[in-house]
Order: sequence, then structure tokens, then C-alpha cells
Amino acid sequence: MENEPKIPINILITHGFLISMDAGLSIIQDGAIAIEGSRIAAIGTTSTLESQYQPQQIIDASGMFVMPGLINTHTHSGDILFRGLVEDLPLESWLEQLWVAENHFINAESVGWGARLAYIEMVRSGITTALDMFWFPYELAQAAKEVGFHLATGFVFFDSPIADGMLPKERYRLARQFLTQYACDELIIPAVQPHSVYTVSTENLKQASKLAQEFGTLFVTHASETLTEVRNCRRDYGCTPIQYLDRLGALTPRTVLAHCVHLDSDEFDLLSQRGVSVANCPVSNMKLASGIANVSQMLLSGVNVTLGTDGPVSGNDLNLWYTMRLAALVQKTVNHDASLMSTKQVVSMATREGAKALGISAKTGSLEVGKQADIILVQTGRAHSTPSFDPYSSIVYSLGREDVETVLINGRLVMYNRNLLTINETEVIEAVRQLGIQIAIYVSQPNQAEKSQTGIRRKE
Amino acid sequence: MENEPKIPINILITHGFLISMDAGLSIIQDGAIAIEGSRIAAIGTTSTLESQYQPQQIIDASGMFVMPGLINTHTHSGDILFRGLVEDLPLESWLEQLWVAENHFINAESVGWGARLAYIEMVRSGITTALDMFWFPYELAQAAKEVGFHLATGFVFFDSPIADGMLPKERYRLARQFLTQYACDELIIPAVQPHSVYTVSTENLKQASKLAQEFGTLFVTHASETLTEVRNCRRDYGCTPIQYLDRLGALTPRTVLAHCVHLDSDEFDLLSQRGVSVANCPVSNMKLASGIANVSQMLLSGVNVTLGTDGPVSGNDLNLWYTMRLAALVQKTVNHDASLMSTKQVVSMATREGAKALGISAKTGSLEVGKQADIILVQTGRAHSTPSFDPYSSIVYSLGREDVETVLINGRLVMYNRNLLTINETEVIEAVRQLGIQIAIYVSQPNQAEKSQTGIRRKE
Repeated sequence: MENEPKIPINILITHGFLISMDAGLSIIQDGAIAIEGSRIAAIGTTSTLESQYQPQQIIDASGMFVMPGLINTHTHSGDILFRGLVEDLPLESWLEQLWVAENHFINAESVGWGARLAYIEMVRSGITTALDMFWFPYELAQAAKEVGFHLATGFVFFDSPIADGMLPKERYRLARQFLTQYACDELIIPAVQPHSVYTVSTENLKQASKLAQEFGTLFVTHASETLTEVRNCRRDYGCTPIQYLDRLGALTPRTVLAHCVHLDSDEFDLLSQRGVSVANCPVSNMKLASGIANVSQMLLSGVNVTLGTDGPVSGNDLNLWYTMRLAALVQKTVNHDASLMSTKQVVSMATREGAKALGISAKTGSLEVGKQADIILVQTGRAHSTPSFDPYSSIVYSLGREDVETVLINGRLVMYNRNLLTINETEVIEAVRQLGIQIAIYVSQPNQAEKSQTGIRRKE
Repeated sequence: MENEPKIPINILITHGFLISMDAGLSIIQDGAIAIEGSRIAAIGTTSTLESQYQPQQIIDASGMFVMPGLINTHTHSGDILFRGLVEDLPLESWLEQLWVAENHFINAESVGWGARLAYIEMVRSGITTALDMFWFPYELAQAAKEVGFHLATGFVFFDSPIADGMLPKERYRLARQFLTQYACDELIIPAVQPHSVYTVSTENLKQASKLAQEFGTLFVTHASETLTEVRNCRRDYGCTPIQYLDRLGALTPRTVLAHCVHLDSDEFDLLSQRGVSVANCPVSNMKLASGIANVSQMLLSGVNVTLGTDGPVSGNDLNLWYTMRLAALVQKTVNHDASLMSTKQVVSMATREGAKALGISAKTGSLEVGKQADIILVQTGRAHSTPSFDPYSSIVYSLGREDVETVLINGRLVMYNRNLLTINETEVIEAVRQLGIQIAIYVSQPNQAEKSQTGIRRKE
């Protein structure tokens, strides 16, 4: 054996504490991962893999957790331009102020800058894949490719010509084109994204569902986020948003529903039967006082629950570490049971369950041979993470975005020792900062209220 | 003017965005702070102060917020040794497991190491003052002095000879000695700390209250943390813990009550009338499923509400940034009102209201001439904090512990560009890591359950 030639590979990660998140939640101490091209070629102990492989590059993960990249199943990247613009207002006034700014500033170019910054922020916090609902998906896909980030996205179905100025027909035509173009992309996962039951007509929702079926892609929408939404749906359609979507045939294993705050137990069972995934977004739901989804009950009913940050306007950052911890805390609280939401469960939601929701379990969500090398290295042993008795506890309750040192996506080093390697971060931050200055000037103008009155409104 | 000699000072902080947290919440762009000895000598624009002062050292705060250090009004530093040891258990089993380890490992030396690490972690996250309830307060005070950290602490009143092996009489004697010794210390704020109404007898609570009165010091205790506590207090004393403490004369403007989760509106009014401060600890209350304190109602009743991380066992870290955001999110949620807990209110709770609770408003909690130079410099303009439309929104919702670059306490540079200057951080982390290894081995022994049965128990 000793004289056998070593196998050449691109990258060997060595001496890490491997948290695989595979089905058996295997852990390897002093572990190594061999990466060839975009894939994981081998996983084992450092000594074994060092004896077998000849890497071009060695990444020393001493003192670090090596784990699958996190998966953010709900966000609106372009909203990053308005991060923190409107605070402490009830939903209606909040939306009004936000839309004034959105209607004026959202265009293909500004969305491109916003998306770049959002994907940079996500990479920095260890997210390697996101499901993103925003206008100008071609620009989103372009930004994701620049950063080297896995992005699930596609055209938003919306009855009014909002920020992108398009009518539903035009968006439908482009949605088909987008689905075709990105059908086999190594980074982009195409999706059909009707905004919600209250902003898209029955006919257009059916069309979206059919389109997702035709292309075998994700069907993504907001559902039962607020009590008002549920009430209005009952008034307009005689049933809840979940029942209504089911009637339209829109609930399938390719469906991702964001929020699902106001559901009853029959609806949990229905989602479970249909194989639907739910993107739980506790930060946003709490900040906008929408309510708290009963994730623990959903899990008991067998629903695949995943985690989302929501957009940086309602959640303010794209930090799935904050979300993991909050998701656990809030479920223990509302169910009066400290034993709920085990740390393993929470980390699963942010990794392997997220991959399942996006239909990419075979490709990512865990460290396994043959899967994409979507891997993050997380520094342990700092003041805030010492001592550590259990890796999952550390991940959920004491580590944070700042501990993510190195990120590989599809086998490519996107961040190394906290330096972004694929994109000029300074340029992106400066571009968004400048847009922010313009936005601040615009919203401070005295005729802002008038603009709001004459501006295009969403149906909500 | 131009030829007047400049005034020599120790430190001039320049070019910062000053968030003073003074009564008028003044802000100075391109601001500067002159520091002489332990005090703030002047505050103004950079150009003005540069023309007036001749500093030994200039700290350039370009691109940073300059704000008062955060104040953590409830923690148990020594519990850091057991961070994450026990997760996802209901309170009773959780305590049982924790106490097995505590009874075996808590001693003067281990507490010293734990306290050092806790104060390092707090400095790293921008906390400059903490109220700490733990065994071996002399060791806590010593650790705080090594780090250069403001610490409010004192002997814990507790009827059983817990971790420190002392009987109440002995603790009382030492408590007096501690209060005398630290009456005029520049870093230590002495306190009288009976653990709770369920672990301290009426007689000993009265004695504690009298002692605090005699020395004019803080009276600190846990109160109404769980429903069980309130129920048992009603059973044993015919009233709630708040009413009971009031009967004993223990509710005064020098009283800090941790938690106060299960209070009714009459009790809010009582706390307000008595001038009592409440340390709200949402992370711990949620993790242990104790419940959610109605902070919004307390504030409406005029209670001084402050923020605490609680110990690193129930909260897992000492991160007041997480707590600020969570305190806001959870109040909006439980009260179904997104307008509650304005960002300014939350930052006040973590700074000036905290100082008020500890009776040190005249000395710290805001950036004002004559106050102690307890100042933190917080980096802005990173990927996760761009753009920024409002500094308070950034502080509560997008900045984090990792953005704290530089910390001054009492005019002394304790952390500069994230390097600890007062203590050997590596040595402290290593000492606690080694203790952690021993703890892990100990609790994994098969006779652990038996030890638990024979160990000393708290009354809870």
C-alpha cells in the first residue's frame, strides 16, 4: 500500500472536527475531506486520507468544525438596499414606507448590487445555498454566479406591474425562458415563485403551478403569514390559504411555503401528506408581530421544516446562526417545554432538511462522498465558545456568523480565512452604501407621502 | 486662540460617529472624545477637540460607532465552565445534571478561571459592566480587576452550604467584610445577593435587606422566574414573591430583580412605586421555557427595565447584542404590536437604564463629560451592516459582538482592534478548556446518577 501512487486531487481539508449531517449524523474527529472538482471524493481520518491523496492545496482545519454549508430557504435579497430603513411600525405603515422607496429604487442594476451584497453576507455567515424571491431574477442569477453561490430563484408571479414594471403575461413568458435556461446549471436552481394567494389571481396561481409541474421545478410562495391573510382568504375563497393552494393542486413535494404561521393541526397533516416543505422565518415573524409558527407541532406531524432569514428589511440581516438559536428558543417557549427542538434537530433544519426542501438532497445538505463540496469551516475554542461539550450545542447556542472562517461552494474556495476570493467585496459594499445615501435623501423629502399615494400599490 | 497651548490628555478618540445615550440622545458626526485618566474630559467634533487637546494616544474611530459600554445586569460568570453541558432538558432534570458537575468542580480556583473567561467574553462583546451573582465573590472581584472590568458583585445568600461549602452565618460575616473592603473601589460595586425567596429563609432575607440598607448597596435577587416559584411562594407565604419581598422591605431603588417573568399589573405598579429595577433575561427565560416577561407593560408602568444575559449555562453566551434584538422581537410578538420596543428604547435598556439599575448613572451608562470613560468602538459598513439608515436600528438589528473593535473601561484600553491588552486570553481559554475536559470525563462516568442522589441539593 505504502508504495502505491497517491491519487491527485484539488483540495484536502485536514485535521477538522467533521460534523457530517448525514443520515446517521456521523462525526469524525481529526477528519479530512478530499475534494476533486466540485465533488467530495473521500471522507475519513486525516491520516488515512493523507496517505491516499496528493492534493494541490491543503486547508488545515485544526480547531475548527467542518460541516455542510447552511441553507437559507427564504429571503428577498434585493431588499438589502433598504435594510433598517423602516423600524418599529405596524405592518401596514411599514409596507407603505418601504414601497415608496422600493418603487423608486428597484431596477435591474440596483437589484444586481443588492443581490451581490446579500450573497456576500450569506457566504460570510456560512450559507452556501439560498432560495431567493425577488424581482429581476436574471440579475440575481448573474450575481450568484459572480459570487459562486448556489441560488434557487425564478420569476415572481404577481398580478400588478410592481418594481419590475412587467405585466403577468410578460413575466410568464420570461419565467419559462428562465426555467429552460437554468435547467441544468451547476449553481442556479430554477423556481416558479408566485408571491402569495393575496397578490396573485386564481388563474395565475394555477398557471404557476402547472409551469412548476411541467418543468419539475420548485413552486415557492408565502402562505398564512398573518391572520389578516388567512381571514381575507376565507372571505374571498371560503377556505384557508393552505386549503386553497391544495385545491389548485399546488401542494407537492416540490412546494416550499414560507412562514405558515397561522395553521391548524389538520393543515399540518395536509402539508405532511403532500410532502410540502415549510420555511420557518422566526426573526421576521416576530419583528413584524405576525405570530409564531408552531414548528414543534409541524415536526410531530411529519412536515419538513427548514429555516429562512427572510429579507433584510424584515429581518435586518441574513444570519442563519441567529435564526437557528431563535427557532429553538421560541418553540421551547410557546410550547412550555424546554426539551423541544433538540440541537441536532435545529442543525438538521439548517442543513439537510433545507436541501430536501429545495429538492437537492442528493447533491448537498450533508458531507458525503459524491455530493457537492459545499463545506464550511467554523472556528471553535474562542472566548465565547469555550468550553464545548457537544458540537450541536455549540452550533445552535454559542457560535455565530463571525466564526465561519472558510467557505467552499461546489468545490470552489469562495471565502478563505474570512477573505472573499470571488468578488470585490469593497466595491459591492460601496455601491450599496451610495444607493443607501440616495434612498435616505429620497425618503426624507417632504413630498414622500404624496408619492406613496400615487405610487403603485400591492394588493395586500 | 490658535496660539494657546493645547491641553495634555491621555487619549483622544477621533472621527467617530458618537452615540452618546445622554438624556437627549445626542449624536455627533465626526465626533471626538478626550480622555484624561479614567474620565471623559471633553466631547465634541474632531476638529474642535483636535485644536484644543494634545493627546498621548490617538484612537481613530473612522467608520465606527462610538458609544457607551453595554451593561449586563444579570449573569452567573462561573457557570461558564459548564456552557452547553446540558441541553434540551426540562428545568428539573437540567438542574440535576448541572449540580452534579457544579458540586464537584466549583471551587475558588475554578471560579477564578471561569470568571476571567466570562469577563473576557463580555469585553469582546462590548460589555464594560456586569452584575454577577456567583460563589467566591473575592475571586470574581480579583478576576474583574485583572481584566479591568466593572463588576457589581458580593456574597450570595443561600441557606444551604452549596458549592462554596459555607453556612449562612459565615457568608454573612464575609458579606459584611466584602461590602466594607469594596465600598470605594474604582472597579468593584459591592452588592448583597440573596439567591431567591425559595432558597433563602425569611430571616436571612431580612438580614440581607438590612445589610444592603446599612451599606447603601445593591440588593439583588431572582424573582418570579417560573410559575412553580410563584405557586410555591403563595403556598408558603400566602403571596407572590414580589409581594413577599415588599413585606420584608426589600424593594427599594437599590433593588435589582432578575427575571420577573410571572407578574401581574399590580406588581408592575408596585415595582414602579418602589423604584425597583428589573433585569430582563429573554434568552434564558425562553431556553428554559420559563416564560416571557411582559417588558412592554413594565415599561408603561414606569419600571426601570434593563437587560441581562443570565449565566452561560442557561443562555450559553454573554452576548448582549443577541439579547437586545431578542428582547425587542419577543415583546413585539407577545403583545401583537410591531411598534413596541423602539430601537432607542432597547439601546437605552442596555446602557443608561442598566447604569441606573446599578446606581451608577452619575458615573457611566452614557458618554458625558465627567463620567468614566467606559466606551466601545463598533465597526460599521461591513457586509452585514450596509446600508445603515439609523444607528439605533443598526445596533439592535444588524450589528453584533464581532463588530466591537475597541473597548475602554475607566479610561483604560482593555481591548484594541480586538486584541485583549490586560490579560493573557490564550492562557485563560486553555485553563477553562482543560477544566471542560475534566468535567466531560466526570459526567460521563456511570455512577453520575448516584452522585446526584447523594449530592447537596438546592431547595428548588
